[in-house]
Amino acid sequence: MRHQFRCAMRWADMDAYGHVNNVVYLSYLEEARVDMLFTLGAELGVKALSDGVLVARHEIEYKRPLVYHPRGVAIDLWVGEIKAASFEIRYEVHDDNVLFARAASLLVPYDLEAERPRRVTDEERAFLEKYLAAD
Amino acid sequence: MRHQFRCAMRWADMDAYGHVNNVVYLSYLEEARVDMLFTLGAELGVKALSDGVLVARHEIEYKRPLVYHPRGVAIDLWVGEIKAASFEIRYEVHDDNVLFARAASLLVPYDLEAERPRRVTDEERAFLEKYLAAD
Amino acid sequence: MRHQFRCAMRWADMDAYGHVNNVVYLSYLEEARVDMLFTLGAELGVKALSDGVLVARHEIEYKRPLVYHPRGVAIDLWVGEIKAASFEIRYEVHDDNVLFARAASLLVPYDLEAERPRRVTDEERAFLEKYLAAD
Amino acid sequence: MRHQFRCAMRWADMDAYGHVNNVVYLSYLEEARVDMLFTLGAELGVKALSDGVLVARHEIEYKRPLVYHPRGVAIDLWVGEIKAASFEIRYEVHDDNVLFARAASLLVPYDLEAERPRRVTDEERAFLEKYLAAD
Repeated sequence: MRHQFRCAMRWADMDAYGHVNNVVYLSYLEEARVDMLFTLGAELGVKALSDGVLVARHEIEYKRPLVYHPRGVAIDLWVGEIKAASFEIRYEVHDDNVLFARAASLLVPYDLEAERPRRVTDEERAFLEKYLAAD
Repeated sequence: MRHQFRCAMRWADMDAYGHVNNVVYLSYLEEARVDMLFTLGAELGVKALSDGVLVARHEIEYKRPLVYHPRGVAIDLWVGEIKAASFEIRYEVHDDNVLFARAASLLVPYDLEAERPRRVTDEERAFLEKYLAAD
Repeated sequence: MRHQFRCAMRWADMDAYGHVNNVVYLSYLEEARVDMLFTLGAELGVKALSDGVLVARHEIEYKRPLVYHPRGVAIDLWVGEIKAASFEIRYEVHDDNVLFARAASLLVPYDLEAERPRRVTDEERAFLEKYLAAD
Repeated sequence: MRHQFRCAMRWADMDAYGHVNNVVYLSYLEEARVDMLFTLGAELGVKALSDGVLVARHEIEYKRPLVYHPRGVAIDLWVGEIKAASFEIRYEVHDDNVLFARAASLLVPYDLEAERPRRVTDEERAFLEKYLAAD
């Protein structure tokens, strides 16, 4: 299952080339992750995931320049892989069947009190598995 | 006495008009304040001012469009007025005798533990008075 | 008449104090202005206002700290005054009857080809007058 | 040869976790690239590289949380590979022998007039080859 998120754009996300700056795409991915992990996680009672998740790695491939539009842009995200102490989220930034970027993030659950990475719990795994998808 | 700060610009501070976006000027003012209050304050042992100061108000007048330059932009700042529980900082954003903006901020010392505004201490007043200047 | 806009927040709009950074409020105001001037203006055929409007001045008063919420924050905006070659927009940033900030911007219509400020046209004045309101 | 750049940080680069937000690292990389390609390129008369270079891909690995410091953070960058119509830049974000992140970007020279990617010129290749380095 893919989680679908419509991300608001800001006019000033565009740089002097008149396109959304490459850095800002990562903000869009962050909003999509927050929407999936914080909001949905909180709804389902999976609190831990919204309390502490570190980003260990990102990769992003830009396919096409993106211009500000008041309706924002769509982001599809799903889970690529779940390991003992990390999981991968994959994304597509698109709109109206046009693909703007493809990305992936490696995320690490983090114990804020003990200040160290921790394992993915069974409860979290069950939540994440619903979004597990072949590309 | 004026405190002088050279603020680094970022290329993406420019928006689709090819000028530094009006919002970003406020980031420049924040960096100049941080430089004056945190860095200098810490050097002089005036810890409190770097621990908690709330912004109560800003006003800014834009004089001329500003374009990214690798050498950054200059900000002069000084203290406009010191009251019992607040003080005003005034700024000029300029470079090479060209004025880009004039601004002022009302700042309120804040007691982070008690979670409420507090009075300006004598020590802080002595520090701020050195920057007190007629416009 | 007030124009009402719900502005999306981004999680990273919060700074190390755990509140939306004071600079980011100005981005929210920009989004609200863009929504009113670009989107509505375009709908009504008032193209000029979406082509070039310079910000000449902002003032903003912070009333209460604001924390990220997935539903965003509400911005009401209206026209404060219309002069020959400028107009003022006034704003309230609020949510659920709590006021977070009050602000005002002075805007100047700009002729992009001639590269100089220009007068408010009759058509623009008619559009703006609908939002003219006593505070 | 590595190009060394000291990147200014902004206090608000930190998010509610009290660390520099993961997205902002990409801004630091952009500043380091701009410094190398625009400034040095301009000095050496290699204009084309500062006129149009698209980002086709980024990857970044976060090694350690980074906290705001007034002296900024150091970025080393060098060229990883030069192909017919693209080249790779590799980076290390570090300070005082502590590594905060490792990253790489694939860049594509772009012909702004013809609005399409173009080949790396001999002149650009000579400039880039000076920064070619084994990791």
